[in-house]
Amino acid sequence: MTEPALVAVDWGTSRLRAALLDEAGTVLERSSADEGIMHVEGGRWAETLDRHVGVWLRQKPALRVVMAGMIGSRNGWVEAPYAQCPAEWSEIAAKMALVRRADGGEVWIAPGLFTRNAEGIPDVMRGEETLICGTNVSDGIMITLGTHCKWATLKSGRIETFASFMTGEFFSALKDHTILGRLAEDPVDNAGFVKGLQAAKRKGGLLHTAFQTRTTVLLGDMPGREVDPFLSGLLIGSEIIGGLELTKPDGMLHLLGAGPRAELYRQTLAAHGYKVIMHDPEQALIAGLARLMHLRGMK
Amino acid sequence: MTEPALVAVDWGTSRLRAALLDEAGTVLERSSADEGIMHVEGGRWAETLDRHVGVWLRQKPALRVVMAGMIGSRNGWVEAPYAQCPAEWSEIAAKMALVRRADGGEVWIAPGLFTRNAEGIPDVMRGEETLICGTNVSDGIMITLGTHCKWATLKSGRIETFASFMTGEFFSALKDHTILGRLAEDPVDNAGFVKGLQAAKRKGGLLHTAFQTRTTVLLGDMPGREVDPFLSGLLIGSEIIGGLELTKPDGMLHLLGAGPRAELYRQTLAAHGYKVIMHDPEQALIAGLARLMHLRGMK
Repeated sequence: MTEPALVAVDWGTSRLRAALLDEAGTVLERSSADEGIMHVEGGRWAETLDRHVGVWLRQKPALRVVMAGMIGSRNGWVEAPYAQCPAEWSEIAAKMALVRRADGGEVWIAPGLFTRNAEGIPDVMRGEETLICGTNVSDGIMITLGTHCKWATLKSGRIETFASFMTGEFFSALKDHTILGRLAEDPVDNAGFVKGLQAAKRKGGLLHTAFQTRTTVLLGDMPGREVDPFLSGLLIGSEIIGGLELTKPDGMLHLLGAGPRAELYRQTLAAHGYKVIMHDPEQALIAGLARLMHLRGMK
Repeated sequence: MTEPALVAVDWGTSRLRAALLDEAGTVLERSSADEGIMHVEGGRWAETLDRHVGVWLRQKPALRVVMAGMIGSRNGWVEAPYAQCPAEWSEIAAKMALVRRADGGEVWIAPGLFTRNAEGIPDVMRGEETLICGTNVSDGIMITLGTHCKWATLKSGRIETFASFMTGEFFSALKDHTILGRLAEDPVDNAGFVKGLQAAKRKGGLLHTAFQTRTTVLLGDMPGREVDPFLSGLLIGSEIIGGLELTKPDGMLHLLGAGPRAELYRQTLAAHGYKVIMHDPEQALIAGLARLMHLRGMK
C-alpha cells in the first residue's frame, strides 16, 4: 500500500465527505455522512472531524487535513474570508485559513469567493472555487451542479465572475411547500421533463409558467406521474436560459457534476446547441485541494 | 332594518367569508373564519356553513346562499365544472351548481373558469371570475390579487383569457423553506421593496436574482431588515414584468385588491407608466354573486 499523504474533506451544509489520499492523489479510503455543518451542534467541529478521519490521523499524526465548503463560512469552524473576483488560484490559496487540531496537526480551510457583476451586484460561492480549481480548466464557462448551481466565467486561469442559480432549492421548496406537488403521483414518468423544458421557454416568467405544473394535470393534458420531472425540466430549463443569457458561451461549456442530474443538464445544453465537457466532482475536489496546498508551498 | 335577501359566501382554500345582504346588496351582517375547504374534514360542509350562516337562515328559511371559490372544486362540497374562455357572464351563470340544504333551501355555487392560450396551454381560476363579474368592467386588463394572482383580458363583456401568477405562494415557500429567509431581521424596513423591484429587472431570471436576497446582506449592501420587502419586491416586480409581457395593456389597468399589498401593486404599475383603476374585492364578490343569480333569473 502506498503511503497516506493528505486528508481531503468536502464539508458542506448537509454532508461531510472525507478521503485519504496518497502522494499521487489516489484515494486510499473514504468516509461520508450526513454530518454537514447544519447538523453539528455546539461547535463540536473537532470531535465530528475526528469521528471520520481520526483513525487515519492516529496512524500518521503529521497528516494535513484540507477542507473546502461551508465549514469555512461564518456558521462553520472558522471563517475563511472570501477571496474576490477576478481571482487567481494563488490568491485563493493565499486566503486559506489554518486551524490546529488537538494533536497539533494542521487543518486548512479553503476560502469562499465573491464577485460583483458589472452593475455591482454581489454573488458568493464556497466550495465550488476549489472544484473549479481542480479541473485545471483556464478559459471558458463552467457550470457546477449543486443545491445552488454556479455559472463561472474563466479567463487566463482566473475566475473572472460567476452567477448563482437556486434551482435545486427552488425544486424542493416548490414541490414540498406549494400546491404544485399535490397532484404528483408515483411511479415517476420522465416524459414530463421535456414538457417542463418547453414550458421554460414560454412567456410570462417562472411565477406564471410554474402554475402549468398543476393546470396541465387538472385539465387532463398530463398525467400526475409526470409532475416531478415537469417541475425539474421547468427549473433546469429556466436556469439554462438565464445562464446562457448571462454568460454567452461560444459553443462549448464545462459541466461539473455526476449522475442522472448531470446527464439532464448535458442533454438540455446539447439541445441548445452546446458541446459539453464533463468533469467529475470528486476528482475535482481532490485535485483542487491538492493544488491549493501546492500553491501554498505544501504537498 | 331592511329585509335580508341573500347570503353571499366566499369559500376559499383557507378562509370562509359570509355576508347577509338586503335586496340592494347592502351588507347587513358578516361572518368570517379560518374554515377554508382545507380545514373542513369528513365532508362536513353543511355543518360548517350552518355554523356561520345558520342563525340568518333560521330567521328566514327561504334565503338563498350563493357561493364562489374553491368550495366548487373537486375537493369542495360539490364540483361545479369549469366554464371555458372566452366566457360570457351568462355562460358562467348557466354552469352554477345547486346543492340542497337540510332545511330544503338552495345553495348555489359559481363554477370556475378555464382557458387555453394561443399555444393551447391551460390555466384555471375559481372565485376570481365572480369578482371580475362584480366589477362590471367589460373591456381591458384586470389583475386580481391573491395567493395566486390572475391577469384577465376582458373584451366586450367577456373574459377572453387569463394568466395565473403564483407570487404569493412563492413568497411563503421561499421565505419559510429556503435559505432566503435566514438573514431576515425584525422590525421590517420597507426600503427593501424598491431594491427588489430593481432586482426583478436584471438578467438571468428569478432562479438567479432570488439569490441576491441573500448575497446583498452577506456582503453588507443591505440590512437584514430589508430582506422580506426585497423578496416581495422581487416577486411582485417579476409578476408585473411577466403580466405586462403577456397582456400588453394600453396604458390603463384594473386592479382588484385592497390594503397595503394592493397599494404596492398600484405604485409598481404606476412606475411602469400605467394608470390603475382600483376595485374593492368585497364589493366585487357581492355584486358578482348577485349578478350571476340575476342572470339565472333569480334575485
